[in-house]
Amino acid sequence: MNYSSAFIPTLREVPADAVIASHRLMFRAGLLRKLANGLFTYLPLGLRSFRKVEQIVREEMDAIGALEIKPTVVIPGELWKESGRWDSMGESLLRVKNRLDNDFVVSPTAEEAFTAIVRDELSSYRQLPLALYQINTKFRDEIRPRYGVMRGREFVMKDAYSWHTNNDSLDETYQAMGRAYRRIFKRCGLSVIPVKADSGAMGGSGSEEFMVESEIGDNTLILCKACSYAANVEKASCALDSHFRPSVEVAKAAASQTPPYEKIDTPNVKTIDELCAFLKTEPQNFIKTLIYRAVNVESDLSSAPAGSYTKAEQTKAAVPEAFFAVAIRGDLDVNEVKLASILKAGEVSLASDADVVRLTNAPVGFAGPVGLTSLPLIIDHTVTGMNDAVTGALAKDLHYKHVAWGRDFEAWMVEDIRTVKAGDRCSLCGGELYTKMGNELGHIFKLGYKYTSSMNVSYLDENGKSQMPTMGCYGIGVDRTLASVIEEHHDEAGIIWPASIAPYHVIIVPIKYDGEMKAAADKLSAELTQAGIEVLLDDRNERPGVKFNDADLLGIPFRVVIGDKGLSLPTPQVEVKRRSEKETYNVDLNKAAAELAEEIREELAKLNT
Amino acid sequence: MNYSSAFIPTLREVPADAVIASHRLMFRAGLLRKLANGLFTYLPLGLRSFRKVEQIVREEMDAIGALEIKPTVVIPGELWKESGRWDSMGESLLRVKNRLDNDFVVSPTAEEAFTAIVRDELSSYRQLPLALYQINTKFRDEIRPRYGVMRGREFVMKDAYSWHTNNDSLDETYQAMGRAYRRIFKRCGLSVIPVKADSGAMGGSGSEEFMVESEIGDNTLILCKACSYAANVEKASCALDSHFRPSVEVAKAAASQTPPYEKIDTPNVKTIDELCAFLKTEPQNFIKTLIYRAVNVESDLSSAPAGSYTKAEQTKAAVPEAFFAVAIRGDLDVNEVKLASILKAGEVSLASDADVVRLTNAPVGFAGPVGLTSLPLIIDHTVTGMNDAVTGALAKDLHYKHVAWGRDFEAWMVEDIRTVKAGDRCSLCGGELYTKMGNELGHIFKLGYKYTSSMNVSYLDENGKSQMPTMGCYGIGVDRTLASVIEEHHDEAGIIWPASIAPYHVIIVPIKYDGEMKAAADKLSAELTQAGIEVLLDDRNERPGVKFNDADLLGIPFRVVIGDKGLSLPTPQVEVKRRSEKETYNVDLNKAAAELAEEIREELAKLNT
Repeated sequence: MNYSSAFIPTLREVPADAVIASHRLMFRAGLLRKLANGLFTYLPLGLRSFRKVEQIVREEMDAIGALEIKPTVVIPGELWKESGRWDSMGESLLRVKNRLDNDFVVSPTAEEAFTAIVRDELSSYRQLPLALYQINTKFRDEIRPRYGVMRGREFVMKDAYSWHTNNDSLDETYQAMGRAYRRIFKRCGLSVIPVKADSGAMGGSGSEEFMVESEIGDNTLILCKACSYAANVEKASCALDSHFRPSVEVAKAAASQTPPYEKIDTPNVKTIDELCAFLKTEPQNFIKTLIYRAVNVESDLSSAPAGSYTKAEQTKAAVPEAFFAVAIRGDLDVNEVKLASILKAGEVSLASDADVVRLTNAPVGFAGPVGLTSLPLIIDHTVTGMNDAVTGALAKDLHYKHVAWGRDFEAWMVEDIRTVKAGDRCSLCGGELYTKMGNELGHIFKLGYKYTSSMNVSYLDENGKSQMPTMGCYGIGVDRTLASVIEEHHDEAGIIWPASIAPYHVIIVPIKYDGEMKAAADKLSAELTQAGIEVLLDDRNERPGVKFNDADLLGIPFRVVIGDKGLSLPTPQVEVKRRSEKETYNVDLNKAAAELAEEIREELAKLNT
Repeated sequence: MNYSSAFIPTLREVPADAVIASHRLMFRAGLLRKLANGLFTYLPLGLRSFRKVEQIVREEMDAIGALEIKPTVVIPGELWKESGRWDSMGESLLRVKNRLDNDFVVSPTAEEAFTAIVRDELSSYRQLPLALYQINTKFRDEIRPRYGVMRGREFVMKDAYSWHTNNDSLDETYQAMGRAYRRIFKRCGLSVIPVKADSGAMGGSGSEEFMVESEIGDNTLILCKACSYAANVEKASCALDSHFRPSVEVAKAAASQTPPYEKIDTPNVKTIDELCAFLKTEPQNFIKTLIYRAVNVESDLSSAPAGSYTKAEQTKAAVPEAFFAVAIRGDLDVNEVKLASILKAGEVSLASDADVVRLTNAPVGFAGPVGLTSLPLIIDHTVTGMNDAVTGALAKDLHYKHVAWGRDFEAWMVEDIRTVKAGDRCSLCGGELYTKMGNELGHIFKLGYKYTSSMNVSYLDENGKSQMPTMGCYGIGVDRTLASVIEEHHDEAGIIWPASIAPYHVIIVPIKYDGEMKAAADKLSAELTQAGIEVLLDDRNERPGVKFNDADLLGIPFRVVIGDKGLSLPTPQVEVKRRSEKETYNVDLNKAAAELAEEIREELAKLNT
């Protein structure tokens, strides 16, 4: 392909909102343009790389026996109502009404569509396991799209779904997907961090996210310095505190030396810091008590105080609203994802000041576990280890000291609800944990019966009995993967493509596209193309400096410069440079095609094996 | 690929609405399933063929230098407002509002998006000509989707757009596209009828449709028995009537022998047939006069009678509503597409009875050209040849006879507005015209300045002067092309795929997938796969008859049957059958892979050259 025919509108200036390298470089190198906020057009060069990522994903899916299908992008709303996600999905779901007033969604993900397809075709256990996938357009109505295609509104996702007669079969496909994902990212030249969502203390491995490190990542990752532990902070656990007490009895015994708890006046003391200064103590010695409001709670609340929740209108329905007191060591934060998961709640958030006052019968800032009978009390594991603590006393300007769990109060639930942070200890090996910011590129997940149950999928087992299949889902964002490759492979001058994803393998730069240089460039280009190598030939009438800068910006893995000097040598020479290296080296013009083809094949083989 | 792992849910029964062969066979052979009315899922086998059509289209676009890009499917409504199509497109445009209340459309076509992209990047004439395309999801909110993917709501279209500094350059790309389209359809094994929209008498060739014959086609085609003339009836012209008078003077002279026109009483005569019976004459001798209402008329109406149209509010804006009298020979029909095109009107339709009465000052059924001063009169060419005609007399139960154009009335316009029909004469060669029903698979079209003007696209020419580029657009429906291949290539037993589009090239059917037969089948499959041939191996535990029927239904071009008898011969034999032929022939097992590979390559070469 000649450069002048390839529509590569490179830019010196980039839009002000392009704050990350991939966004900047995709615009500068002419890979991408903006159509509207969060909507982008891939230009020819960008699309070439995009298609290569797609193809790698397709090959790896096919290799594990997943079958590609293509449902529509616009999906009947009925299916989403069946699964319940029409209501639960929130505003990021783009809903449409057509001329006949029928509801549709522009697919953000396709559990419903795939489940509906399989529901209609599945009859016998012999058809299982079955894994289907698509590589197709998705839409998520992000309220603040940004970072280019890293978080756009429309994007392409490979989403796969599988159905199984039993958990072992699901696990087998789940593991195969995990291996395929590792291969996909390796072939793209990406370093990913596979993050098990509930590894370690919580047991099992029903979900794994594939993250890349990124300063603008949406996710905080918790990693261990000593072992391979990696988790999303939303789900991360850590080793139990050494003071952990396994039961009320043990805690009582540990508190036997603690004086009885007593009231202390704390006038005008509002924050934990002020309290610590006032009492000359540390946050670790304080039991922080927060009041949470939860909605759509599915866990059993029958033992919670009567006034703390609204009864559901129907039996078995979720409780629409419930309040909880949550106690944790003063230096730690409550992890709301863990809390919501424990309560099986749709959402949890701090209660309003009015609710706090009403429910604790005390001003905001003085909640505490002792004597609190109006709310179910959930305590973090760390609180079990505190046998001489300071807490709010449920009255203005008053606190208690010498408080101990087991002796002075008990809990409705004892759970891991802390947000793990750098410096905590690994639950697997005890090593020190640290954090990184990460972006999720892929996610594999054991769904279980969520969709097959709500959408009534069944098959006949060996005994002719109707059974419900269990299900897994597996996604990869194609755009985000491509952008992440650029994030990982660039320098100040531009992109440094891995050969597997590069829009072209070789850029040929004749110093002047004229006379002998033109002839040599054309010949080399033809030979390389013949050998299956993808060539961009810079045929522009530009100064060499401009051409070199553009070659660096575009990031083509190999650059071949053809100049008069080299050609006039007894054995004509061309100059080769890898984009990833500083040094150039000379190659005989006549051997250049064969040698380059060989190097590129090696490069590709390295990535693909 | 083993049949049992390929998810091919074949059907005996098909949905009642599957009335055409491709719809029926795509369901029966497990290529397609319905998700909702007009929304379909391609299953693995269908998607393989679909991707092959896509790839053929892509290769042919690339071969003529068009560059693939990928805008989004969801497009900002703002761009459609700029072009004016937000309002003019009607209800088939799927409009969406997102959470921020911004307008979007789910793209039915992408003139706006492509023009916006080029507008931002185009600066110099050196960048032109430029041809860009996408192969992407489209949505058209059909009120009555039917015939499976032949007329679905969501579909995939290849749409290309080109920009040029002048008409010669546009014509060059337009011609190249036409050639590429012919190659695409040939490679798919399709017989298409290229239909020039305005060939022949009307001159030029700014639009060409690629049609396939189809009993359920949306289009009536007019074809010549003697030459290659082919046109959509909406635009078809025919040879002028032999009585055609070129001017009012010639007509006057021809009418010199005709008695003066006179009023005749025609009580209770309502239709042309009744009138012919009453006057003992033929419809050919009657001038039919119809009153039309046109909206958004852009042609110059300054010479039309004042009361016949509503003035536009702004100068240069289209006239919102105008009325016309249209006269044509009594045995012919007015072609409303031609009429709208002549008037540059958004739409034309017969005026309401009330408007007819108001404007002609006579009951409905008695309009005529003589004495009609309230409306601009447009006459078809045929009326110029009538010098002794019957017409309405603009009064109840009255007609005129002996009417002649030029002598008794003149016209505001003389144009070709007739609907051509079978039996008319070809405008190119005088041969007899006949009709066929057809479906449009592709369309190439010279757009001119419509979008570059409304959306303000410009570039600097050689002299640094700002100029507006001219534009072409070129579409092919991928789904419809695929379905049309099945329409053309099938029999009672199933599909007969051309090798280029077949989901697999060979189906291997061991009589029993066991023992020696299994070994031979596996070996042949491996050898063929090694040779680049796509193989489906029927590994199912089914009776041979079932397997043979399914092989016929799926339409794989070559079937190889492996049986005990053939294998036990001194030189083991397998039985080969082309799907397109009745006869089987035996091949040495050891030579089978090489021979089949050779035959398939020949078959592909035949289609591709």
